Amino acid sequence: MIEAPYLLFLGDAPDRLAAKVAQGIRDWRPGVALGQLRMEGCRADLGLPDMTLAEARAAGVRTLVIGVANRGGVIAESWLKVLVEALAEGMDLASGLHNLLRDEPVLVEAARRFGRRLHDVRLPGVKYPIATGLKRRGKRLLAVGTDCSSGKMYTTLAMARAMQTRGMKATFRATGQTGILIEGDGVPLDAVIADFMAGSIEWLTPDNDPDHWDLIEGQGSLHHVSYAGVTLALIHGGQPDALVLCHEPTRSHMRGLPHYPLPSLEATRDLALTHARLANPACRAIGVSINTQALGEAEAAACLAEVETRMGLPAVDPLRTGVDRLIAALEEV
Amino acid sequence: MIEAPYLLFLGDAPDRLAAKVAQGIRDWRPGVALGQLRMEGCRADLGLPDMTLAEARAAGVRTLVIGVANRGGVIAESWLKVLVEALAEGMDLASGLHNLLRDEPVLVEAARRFGRRLHDVRLPGVKYPIATGLKRRGKRLLAVGTDCSSGKMYTTLAMARAMQTRGMKATFRATGQTGILIEGDGVPLDAVIADFMAGSIEWLTPDNDPDHWDLIEGQGSLHHVSYAGVTLALIHGGQPDALVLCHEPTRSHMRGLPHYPLPSLEATRDLALTHARLANPACRAIGVSINTQALGEAEAAACLAEVETRMGLPAVDPLRTGVDRLIAALEEV
Repeated sequence: MIEAPYLLFLGDAPDRLAAKVAQGIRDWRPGVALGQLRMEGCRADLGLPDMTLAEARAAGVRTLVIGVANRGGVIAESWLKVLVEALAEGMDLASGLHNLLRDEPVLVEAARRFGRRLHDVRLPGVKYPIATGLKRRGKRLLAVGTDCSSGKMYTTLAMARAMQTRGMKATFRATGQTGILIEGDGVPLDAVIADFMAGSIEWLTPDNDPDHWDLIEGQGSLHHVSYAGVTLALIHGGQPDALVLCHEPTRSHMRGLPHYPLPSLEATRDLALTHARLANPACRAIGVSINTQALGEAEAAACLAEVETRMGLPAVDPLRTGVDRLIAALEEV
Repeated sequence: MIEAPYLLFLGDAPDRLAAKVAQGIRDWRPGVALGQLRMEGCRADLGLPDMTLAEARAAGVRTLVIGVANRGGVIAESWLKVLVEALAEGMDLASGLHNLLRDEPVLVEAARRFGRRLHDVRLPGVKYPIATGLKRRGKRLLAVGTDCSSGKMYTTLAMARAMQTRGMKATFRATGQTGILIEGDGVPLDAVIADFMAGSIEWLTPDNDPDHWDLIEGQGSLHHVSYAGVTLALIHGGQPDALVLCHEPTRSHMRGLPHYPLPSLEATRDLALTHARLANPACRAIGVSINTQALGEAEAAACLAEVETRMGLPAVDPLRTGVDRLIAALEEV
């Protein structure tokens, strides 16, 4: 568990996009970040108070979160200086970078010296169990997509926040690096050892109150030949009661696989339900979440209406229409 | 690649079953093991010449293979002494034990000193790629099972050996620890990082001659909630042209999951083909391999006949009937 509150490190981000992890934390956990730290040349601005490390410490910050993608896979010298100072000020560090904090001897040494922790959220920090498939109490929803990067994290985060706002018992369960940095914990599923994938998701979504919902971030797609095994482990380990189908309607082929067309929403639903009902015979598809960002207003409305009619399920775009209709559908599960 | 020839280390195996890895190597790679090394109290005997380390070295042995399961997850002091001596004699070590050779400082030190290698076949030794799903040349068969431990390794090994004997181009592709120790290389799939599972199988079964067959050892089952993701990665990464369905007919529930019944052969076929045809639309189920060990002669024959009629596919027990009919079916693919 990454300790809050955070200071968001934006480094020398060349633009807003480079700081999208920080932006995600600011958007989805308002209040958790007390400020931002921008170095010389930084062109991103989250609209949070700019703080020095000393100011952040005085304000009660516990963790400096690296909210910026670095260039070239190496943590720059200029960053290392700031990160060591943060450790010296008594803060932990958290990062989703490919190049790990723990692979930087200067950070390892400083963390040891100052008694602080380095959170590399790309790496599992837990010895996960083998999945048992035993039925757990509480309810679970899993986002499954026609492809990777089709809005699964966004949809489950939006649902969790809306449910929490209504006073429903709901927890977002992160399974990817950005989700983990937003939520403060989770399972970095793509880095888990094969035999423990489904078990890691059982561990992530344990027994709970009968009226509690886990909103499980999906990964990959059953129709994506690079990652489908990861998706299947999520379906079996999550033993969802409800699936929400996620789709990006303008994509012409699977992400990274130009020779593989996208599956239909129907095929995605049918294959996911076939697998899901092994672990939970009651599982149902309760709605569709469509990322219509690339469409104009009228096109988006037409797309949602067409999918809704065709699938016989509520179809929403979390950003345009909100997720209220998905939550209403959950209440029937 | 583990260098042959081998000396098989049986340690102080309390019975024949404890030495089943060594037995597998002796059965499936006759000639690769020049001898066996048995310590005080060993009750297993493979019928190979007993050799000292010096004798083995003089005979040309390159690797001491640990062919015995140890008790309690610790490599005993008495074993360590022999293993260090083997390194000093100029042999590499190979092991599929859960407790790793590389976690024993005395072995690491001795390997360094004598310039030898430690092969822990439970660990991937390669940085595998992400799967691309690109069609590869050559033919591939994958064993898929109704459950774990249903004869997949045995079936693909038997097919590979029979095809090699006939002069066909065929390679057994190991995906588990015992198979790797038998074959000398392979992918320890259950220990691969989630994102690289399918890619590791693409790597294992590369482009080949148009008339070459890879016989890919299967793992798990699409209906086993603990491991199905591993199975799916094999199906997508292997892009098989042919599936052989493996089944143990007396099992009442999934291995390790008493609350999960076995799927039918039909359900196994249909689900595996649905997934397989994503990566290879021409994939077909070509036969059934049934482990009838627990049945009497008449019962076994009746079981095979019933399955054959029901499935419309040749049904064999590799041990009782051989695999010729599966190979004949391959010739039509």
